[in-house]
Amino acid sequence: MKGGGRSSARETIGRVASGAIAKKILKQFSGTEVLGYVSQVHQVVLPDGSVDHDTLTLDQIESNIVRCPNPEYAEKMIAAIDDVWARGDSIGGVVTCIVKNAPRGLGSPVFDKLEAELAKALMSLPATKGFECGSGFAGTFLTGSEHNDEFFTDEHGRIRTRTNRSGGIQGGISNGEIIKMRVAFKPTATIGKKQNTVTREKREIELTALTRHDPCVLPRAVPTVEAMVALVLVDQLMAQHAQCNLFPINPELQEPLSFNSPNLEPANI
Amino acid sequence: MKGGGRSSARETIGRVASGAIAKKILKQFSGTEVLGYVSQVHQVVLPDGSVDHDTLTLDQIESNIVRCPNPEYAEKMIAAIDDVWARGDSIGGVVTCIVKNAPRGLGSPVFDKLEAELAKALMSLPATKGFECGSGFAGTFLTGSEHNDEFFTDEHGRIRTRTNRSGGIQGGISNGEIIKMRVAFKPTATIGKKQNTVTREKREIELTALTRHDPCVLPRAVPTVEAMVALVLVDQLMAQHAQCNLFPINPELQEPLSFNSPNLEPANI
Amino acid sequence: MKGGGRSSARETIGRVASGAIAKKILKQFSGTEVLGYVSQVHQVVLPDGSVDHDTLTLDQIESNIVRCPNPEYAEKMIAAIDDVWARGDSIGGVVTCIVKNAPRGLGSPVFDKLEAELAKALMSLPATKGFECGSGFAGTFLTGSEHNDEFFTDEHGRIRTRTNRSGGIQGGISNGEIIKMRVAFKPTATIGKKQNTVTREKREIELTALTRHDPCVLPRAVPTVEAMVALVLVDQLMAQHAQCNLFPINPELQEPLSFNSPNLEPANI
Amino acid sequence: MKGGGRSSARETIGRVASGAIAKKILKQFSGTEVLGYVSQVHQVVLPDGSVDHDTLTLDQIESNIVRCPNPEYAEKMIAAIDDVWARGDSIGGVVTCIVKNAPRGLGSPVFDKLEAELAKALMSLPATKGFECGSGFAGTFLTGSEHNDEFFTDEHGRIRTRTNRSGGIQGGISNGEIIKMRVAFKPTATIGKKQNTVTREKREIELTALTRHDPCVLPRAVPTVEAMVALVLVDQLMAQHAQCNLFPINPELQEPLSFNSPNLEPANI
Repeated sequence: MKGGGRSSARETIGRVASGAIAKKILKQFSGTEVLGYVSQVHQVVLPDGSVDHDTLTLDQIESNIVRCPNPEYAEKMIAAIDDVWARGDSIGGVVTCIVKNAPRGLGSPVFDKLEAELAKALMSLPATKGFECGSGFAGTFLTGSEHNDEFFTDEHGRIRTRTNRSGGIQGGISNGEIIKMRVAFKPTATIGKKQNTVTREKREIELTALTRHDPCVLPRAVPTVEAMVALVLVDQLMAQHAQCNLFPINPELQEPLSFNSPNLEPANI
Repeated sequence: MKGGGRSSARETIGRVASGAIAKKILKQFSGTEVLGYVSQVHQVVLPDGSVDHDTLTLDQIESNIVRCPNPEYAEKMIAAIDDVWARGDSIGGVVTCIVKNAPRGLGSPVFDKLEAELAKALMSLPATKGFECGSGFAGTFLTGSEHNDEFFTDEHGRIRTRTNRSGGIQGGISNGEIIKMRVAFKPTATIGKKQNTVTREKREIELTALTRHDPCVLPRAVPTVEAMVALVLVDQLMAQHAQCNLFPINPELQEPLSFNSPNLEPANI
Repeated sequence: MKGGGRSSARETIGRVASGAIAKKILKQFSGTEVLGYVSQVHQVVLPDGSVDHDTLTLDQIESNIVRCPNPEYAEKMIAAIDDVWARGDSIGGVVTCIVKNAPRGLGSPVFDKLEAELAKALMSLPATKGFECGSGFAGTFLTGSEHNDEFFTDEHGRIRTRTNRSGGIQGGISNGEIIKMRVAFKPTATIGKKQNTVTREKREIELTALTRHDPCVLPRAVPTVEAMVALVLVDQLMAQHAQCNLFPINPELQEPLSFNSPNLEPANI
Repeated sequence: MKGGGRSSARETIGRVASGAIAKKILKQFSGTEVLGYVSQVHQVVLPDGSVDHDTLTLDQIESNIVRCPNPEYAEKMIAAIDDVWARGDSIGGVVTCIVKNAPRGLGSPVFDKLEAELAKALMSLPATKGFECGSGFAGTFLTGSEHNDEFFTDEHGRIRTRTNRSGGIQGGISNGEIIKMRVAFKPTATIGKKQNTVTREKREIELTALTRHDPCVLPRAVPTVEAMVALVLVDQLMAQHAQCNLFPINPELQEPLSFNSPNLEPANI
């Protein structure tokens, strides 16, 4: 069927549908919000710090067709996509995803670290080639004293970190700060230009895709990224809840599963 | 115990031990070789193309203490580590890992893509903050026509790709080319400098690590990366073998599990 | 919907469909045959030894509507079912299932013993209340010297047991003899007679089932039993194949996955 | 090592240790108690109804060396074991296990029915050959109208069943009544009498076990049965808690996880 190859991202419909339910559970349980947006399309790169994660809203992201919360860069991205479309070519980019009011304590200490679970979930999406959490590859250019997140006690008596280079996950476990990830999507393989290839019988031929194709999947990848993140978080929340709320060993040492925003109340603890 | 925190990389001893067996199995089954090396230490970045993956050997990697196959850059990395050690600070970097003679067909098409399995395995190692496969984040700056790997039939009648931007994995399944990954390790958190933190009782204090610590884990991270990659590959090879060799639906459509180097013979098919 | 409660055995359709494929794989791989039959309906109990498992065929089982290979007892079972049907009541019974030419070596030594896997698979069928392997509960009335299966070398040079009280599984691993199980099905709960019950609001009422119901599920349970057994065996065969054929440690100590009947050749080793 | 074969029940030490913790969790969470006892040794069969499950205590079971709560039958069992020991032979039997104050709602509706999970766990113990839940094989001799457990509302306003032929599990889910199981253990294979066997080289020889062996494992099997049951229940309780307490869809339809004994209060809901 035209447009429906083995690795077609059409498969992600089931992920997005179940992710929608996972998002509702997270929202109601702890005011947790999963927000993805396009932070790079080909050479158009949203500068660091141009999106304020503390105040970012879904409306800002959905205000334009490329799902980039910065209107100026959204225009540039749209222009880049229009341009590559006209040339029968394709481009990739990066989706950034954050989790606000993430419950603390999610993730396992060794093999099933929260970053490991998120990495697998996101690298299982079609066309992904890279994953970063927190400072990611850029963090490798810092020293330990520059990179370390200093702990302090905030005005509500909660233990916080002053910076968030860890991206909300330390030692594989969420620490209550904003979880921050970046996912690289390669340019779509199906393009309108002629390409060399071989048949199953190993004969060399030229191929021009006749199927409808997509010059840039980034805007439509955003919901799939959010869905996978939400599904991982609900799974981990269930494990955490079963482990820590069913039979707390020493309640004095345990804070309730928590959220950052002091005016939100969890729906059900 | 000094030096043995919850997230101490001492835990990886079991991974490296079992990885050693996995490597032997891969070697004997299909001449498959898993080779990791340090490609970046802090600001010292091994330039692209300075390592020839086709001829890279374990001896080259093990020829110096930082496990970087380029002697000139190895010197620079050692100097950088010495320097940061003297200052009581720490630095991170990148481990590159390749798989030569990787069997074709490993990985599942949807959730358990080979990249997803590798990403989880590697992001479960302590201090990792990023994972890339093939062109990774850099690939997002190319267009589809620049990025696509052209298929051709080589002189041994095998279907190959002229470039390998996919990093040996297409649509989640290994294609027989060299598998190529990069893993980011953040600078170690435990440093000799004084840092601000809070106690469990939320009192703000200053902390200076008294424990023995490590200014740069990169050289010692190499075997852990190789181990995790080898373990994933053996798991996938077992699944593939059970699925395709136990009861082949249509043998005419299937090539034997294969390897690139024509003068190597698999130990047992 | 009438006749389709939460625990309706209609759910087993997917098990039987996939079991049919599993049976084909087993047959082609090693001439393995999974045969179930009704050995008890209410008070009508097929005597021990009245079915010769070495010569039992699918045709004998399918020769009558209750799937009992003994025509005389099949008649009695049909009469018992007719009788209970007329009275608006229901009856249960026992399905016996055997596996001929079962490959040796299937099953894991500790938690995932072959008997454990089969027990779970069969006790997951609706209305099952008991599972036996080999001598089962009856074997508890024997002494060790009466119960032990003596090993000998048969005329084809194969190691066999003279008796088969173990039911083809020793220490959790198949030994190549006929695997023998019995599964108890309780009488169907939905009957035509008036019964006392309570509503969700805890009010006591009388209930008479208006739905079409089934006085005895035993004949129709046979394919579900066979399906679950075949699915377990294929899973275990895949695990065994991956483990032992991919990379045999010491081939001299290993016999090929085998079958009892010397004139059958496996389709693919 | 003498006495430590591949299938030695010494392996169960880890099961019993972790089962002890599982029992504590169950006790504290919902006053749940797992009690196993020997109900048959060879020909000595404790008559139905001779143990009152509502009042059975651990002390009664531990009052003698065979772990049979009926002193008269305990004497007979001890005599039977002494006798078979003197003859260098071995005998098997049946362990009955009950769960009092079992939480309602445990188990999954299709493949992971509570009976299926318990069956697998118990059939993974060495020497087991049969498993029954509730009426078991004996229930196949009843009609549906005799077998069905009538629901009623008890004096505390709780929905109960008047009989408990289901053994506390209906449609794969616990219903709050006493869970009741029976497990068959075959006579130990290692005996003091001479037996015929073959060597690995297929030579026929006679074998007399020189190792210390055990004429009857039943009394020592009791803690292993209890441990496996407790571990299954805690697993299911965690799943149930994560599923139903984290985010209740419609709290009006849900009763709290419950227990039968009205004067016990759960430690933590």
